[in-house]
Amino acid sequence: MAFQYLTNIPLEQARKEYLDLLIQNGMGGTSERIGVQNACERITARAVYAQICAPHYHASAMDGIAVKAAATFGATQTTPVTLAPEQYTVVDTGDPLPENCDAVIMVEDVVKEEDGSVRLFDAAAPWQHIRQIGEDICAGEMILPAYTAVTPSAIGALLAGGVMEIDVLKKPVVGIIPTGDEIIPPTSDPAPGDIIEFNSSIFSAMLRQWGAEPVTFPIVPDRFDMIKAAVSRALAECDIVVLNAGSSAGREDYSAQVIKELGGVLYHGIAMKPGKPAILGYQGAKAILGVPGYPVSGIIVIEQLLKPILEYQNHHPVRQDQMVRAQLSRPVVSGLKYQEFVRVRMGHVDGRLIATPLNRGSGVVSSFMKADGILTIPQGLEGYEAGSEVEVRLLRPVEELENTLVAIGSHDPLLDELADLLHRKDSSFYMASTHTGSMGGIMAVRRRETHVAGIHLLDEEDGTYNTSYVRRYFPNGGVRLVECVGRTQGIMAAKGNPKQIAGIEDLAASGIRYVNRQKGSGTRILMDYLCKKADLDVSSIYGYEREEFTHTSVAAQIASGSADAGMGIYSAAKMYDLAFIPVCTEQYDLLIPDSAWETTLVQEMLEILRSREFACKLEELGGYTLQSPGTVRCRF
Amino acid sequence: MAFQYLTNIPLEQARKEYLDLLIQNGMGGTSERIGVQNACERITARAVYAQICAPHYHASAMDGIAVKAAATFGATQTTPVTLAPEQYTVVDTGDPLPENCDAVIMVEDVVKEEDGSVRLFDAAAPWQHIRQIGEDICAGEMILPAYTAVTPSAIGALLAGGVMEIDVLKKPVVGIIPTGDEIIPPTSDPAPGDIIEFNSSIFSAMLRQWGAEPVTFPIVPDRFDMIKAAVSRALAECDIVVLNAGSSAGREDYSAQVIKELGGVLYHGIAMKPGKPAILGYQGAKAILGVPGYPVSGIIVIEQLLKPILEYQNHHPVRQDQMVRAQLSRPVVSGLKYQEFVRVRMGHVDGRLIATPLNRGSGVVSSFMKADGILTIPQGLEGYEAGSEVEVRLLRPVEELENTLVAIGSHDPLLDELADLLHRKDSSFYMASTHTGSMGGIMAVRRRETHVAGIHLLDEEDGTYNTSYVRRYFPNGGVRLVECVGRTQGIMAAKGNPKQIAGIEDLAASGIRYVNRQKGSGTRILMDYLCKKADLDVSSIYGYEREEFTHTSVAAQIASGSADAGMGIYSAAKMYDLAFIPVCTEQYDLLIPDSAWETTLVQEMLEILRSREFACKLEELGGYTLQSPGTVRCRF
Repeated sequence: MAFQYLTNIPLEQARKEYLDLLIQNGMGGTSERIGVQNACERITARAVYAQICAPHYHASAMDGIAVKAAATFGATQTTPVTLAPEQYTVVDTGDPLPENCDAVIMVEDVVKEEDGSVRLFDAAAPWQHIRQIGEDICAGEMILPAYTAVTPSAIGALLAGGVMEIDVLKKPVVGIIPTGDEIIPPTSDPAPGDIIEFNSSIFSAMLRQWGAEPVTFPIVPDRFDMIKAAVSRALAECDIVVLNAGSSAGREDYSAQVIKELGGVLYHGIAMKPGKPAILGYQGAKAILGVPGYPVSGIIVIEQLLKPILEYQNHHPVRQDQMVRAQLSRPVVSGLKYQEFVRVRMGHVDGRLIATPLNRGSGVVSSFMKADGILTIPQGLEGYEAGSEVEVRLLRPVEELENTLVAIGSHDPLLDELADLLHRKDSSFYMASTHTGSMGGIMAVRRRETHVAGIHLLDEEDGTYNTSYVRRYFPNGGVRLVECVGRTQGIMAAKGNPKQIAGIEDLAASGIRYVNRQKGSGTRILMDYLCKKADLDVSSIYGYEREEFTHTSVAAQIASGSADAGMGIYSAAKMYDLAFIPVCTEQYDLLIPDSAWETTLVQEMLEILRSREFACKLEELGGYTLQSPGTVRCRF
Repeated sequence: MAFQYLTNIPLEQARKEYLDLLIQNGMGGTSERIGVQNACERITARAVYAQICAPHYHASAMDGIAVKAAATFGATQTTPVTLAPEQYTVVDTGDPLPENCDAVIMVEDVVKEEDGSVRLFDAAAPWQHIRQIGEDICAGEMILPAYTAVTPSAIGALLAGGVMEIDVLKKPVVGIIPTGDEIIPPTSDPAPGDIIEFNSSIFSAMLRQWGAEPVTFPIVPDRFDMIKAAVSRALAECDIVVLNAGSSAGREDYSAQVIKELGGVLYHGIAMKPGKPAILGYQGAKAILGVPGYPVSGIIVIEQLLKPILEYQNHHPVRQDQMVRAQLSRPVVSGLKYQEFVRVRMGHVDGRLIATPLNRGSGVVSSFMKADGILTIPQGLEGYEAGSEVEVRLLRPVEELENTLVAIGSHDPLLDELADLLHRKDSSFYMASTHTGSMGGIMAVRRRETHVAGIHLLDEEDGTYNTSYVRRYFPNGGVRLVECVGRTQGIMAAKGNPKQIAGIEDLAASGIRYVNRQKGSGTRILMDYLCKKADLDVSSIYGYEREEFTHTSVAAQIASGSADAGMGIYSAAKMYDLAFIPVCTEQYDLLIPDSAWETTLVQEMLEILRSREFACKLEELGGYTLQSPGTVRCRF
């Protein structure tokens, strides 16, 4: 319990020392013998030699007759040679060469006589038109060296060479132990306080992709003796053990002490973010890796510190992710004391590759799923300024990025449906939306970072939507405003409206907890305007500073009972079965820069906007009105 | 039987029309429901939405106390607020927020009194230090659109969102039917005339990599009714059928007729090489692909014509191979009437990427295994000249090529062992040898196409090895000659030497069939010299024009009984258990250009040459003498 030391070792150093220590302790792979047909993508444990030649017999390479070449010597156009029936044999391609023959004559060069003999007008060279023994592979030749991945064609060469079984490296077995009192197996109906254990599922999938064999052990409560027993058992059965801490950081963290008692701890605490609390432990040649509980930290630690061990044991590098240079859309600030891995969303807009940092919370697994790349900020650097050119490790193929429609701006669930329809229409097209609010969308178009921006901005002066904002922010034009949908905004409240909220005026009442949208979002601008019009002091609304980034998350807060009301669109209220007090109908449009207009991606999207399928989807979501979506309202 | 039409449709056109026809006939995928934990790399069949929020409850984001924020309002350094024990709850990170609390205060900001109350010197803002419901994922949000590959982190997001099972596209089932009277299942002991059926194993491995489920049916003899029955059965069980013809091209090819009777044939004969006899057949929406019997033809046809169908059914492209520009080392001649796929070996030498065409025989499966890339020669082009810059589709990652030691020159089995030792030493290093004979090696060094060339060239004038040749071909120097091994050359003859061959003089005797090495090889030069010295007319040696490219293949011919004698090294004779009549000891050296000298790859190789392991390997092979391998004999 008293044991707690946290070092801050640079990642590179920790990785190297850890690997060296394990190698010094005798870490190595074992092999197993398997059938060649099941060996695809496995790694040879030793060199493999051909058992037989391929072809394993002399075969005719043509349809024709097999002869003894010497019997044809002297044949010319003027002095043909005649062979008696016993001097030749009819052969097809692939047939074995008959005894005593050493040449094949093509059927078209043979003149057959009535008595069964043949006349030849050309001498045959010895071994002509014969596929000789070993033309492909000679017995005794090395087919594959050690530590080589078996490809489909290598399977063919091995079987052709008479090799039926080979020794391949056994996949390292990695035992994963989830720990924590509050941790429960995946369920769709957790109780408050339960933490769903999905890390082992993520890690297992990653490990399989890297050629390891994951084994997940049952969840262990936060008790020292039980954790120790679980690790002991895993060590007996596995080559490597991953001890995944409960996400509570405090009093219940026994991992380091357990590992120390069972073997040793090289380092506890690495200069990396996320992932600092990682524990580099071992028992002899077996790695025991203490992995923090937050999923993103865990993913990074597994990748940075476990993958190299697997690569060593498999004697084979995992296929490297591609590196690209991209332009950073926003500044990233990082600490001097650690190396940081920042998840970025990438977009290919206007001929440039743009990288936008995603939510850096290490509990946010969806941010890893949405990430297109990882930006590494070295230790000793304070970060990068907006506009910097940075090197990014791609998590998706670059062709996918080039075929991805980028949408930055106001949130609406219809954007996800649009993405789905676009990808269903042509599976080489993708759409990636980021929710920054309407003003964020306008700024992204100005900075040439997006193909399209969803906006719904009310002009307080004349009650119009969007046009006056676009005119103000794009004085030189270069953009088009495309009609999308009309949608109903209103006050969402708990089901049955128990607090009997009838309108904006009721939000300042005592006992009403409001949840707001972030500044710059169209809904926030609308709310601010409505309060002003109603002469309502926003400081009298409890929770007005509590900001959420999407309609759905506002609805989720109300549904959970942690807020009583929030402004949002009807479809979000419907999704959470909330009461909805309509306030107004607004125009949600798409702003598209001229530079993106002619791209296939934008044109495909416009076609979908105009489709019946899209209209049906909106009908399902509810609260939308459609006039002529996909038409240009205004060109600036 | 009479049915036979061979078209010559351009590949692109055939591919497009075939896909269009199948789509028009209703080809599509079906879905199946599977556990999320098993869904990695599977493709979603429809959009997946979150069932619950993640987090699904308000959680403390810190260790500290949970309070009602309003109760702390007004607290400052000078006017602290005291909360009674019932006004707060101690919480750890991850704990659910207690009823009626809406803020968390960090433990370090709390001053605990003896009576159990706490004093606070700062007001808490509502919702501070709380991980709100839905921070990661909101219930109802789309987690994945349709037709999206599930990644490890997506598995985490799905489980976090309470999704336990999802609908994924069912893998298309591809039935493979091998046909042919002479075809037998893989064996290490085939009889002459048997053809080992390994195509289905190659195709299965490829199909698995592309997300299909292969099923191989038993081998069917070349009988019309039996083939028809087999295809019918496969059609009932599979989504796609591959009918793999026996390799005999002639009278036994029923495939097209069978397919026509069961459905239809769009085209029989595509303007591609290899693969021209491909049959694009169908039964309704099910493709029936007739694939030629030669393995390389089969691989190309499957890749060019079946992969696009799978990509369509899976709504997901197979990860594209990388394209690179490379310089062609030799001319490639192709026909105007077809598109040709040429397998090339690639080397990264002296800052340039070199592509060398491999054996184009479509029966040579080892050439596909050795290929680093595929060069496509479009229809209508006669080929490329040596030195042309061409576009090559890589079959290996480019980093591997950059770490590959290129050896072109004289053949010796020790090169394979060297490759094995190099890769075992560091699995990021590779070695690729091509056997062109000693003179071919010298030319490759001159053309800057290789890092190293094995040579053993006898100077007839003074009996020295290699130096005089190097001086002649590199008048300006720039190369080093590195000592490798002494090796015993001699006459290989059948086991027990039944023809009682005692020396060169006996080779011209009647009844002796000789097998030679190719012109330009050191062994051929040696043989020519020995004949001259013995005053032997080479035209009197039967089979002197029969040329093989390696010592091993010469030995294989003798072992098979198709030749009685051949010149070669002792290790090859030993490998095939042949009689060996020593003739001389020669010096086998490695020629290395200065430009490659300092590279890690060459230095690592030299270290291996000097190692004990290498010496042991040569001892095993037999017939070698070692002085000081790896030292520079001469610098030019």
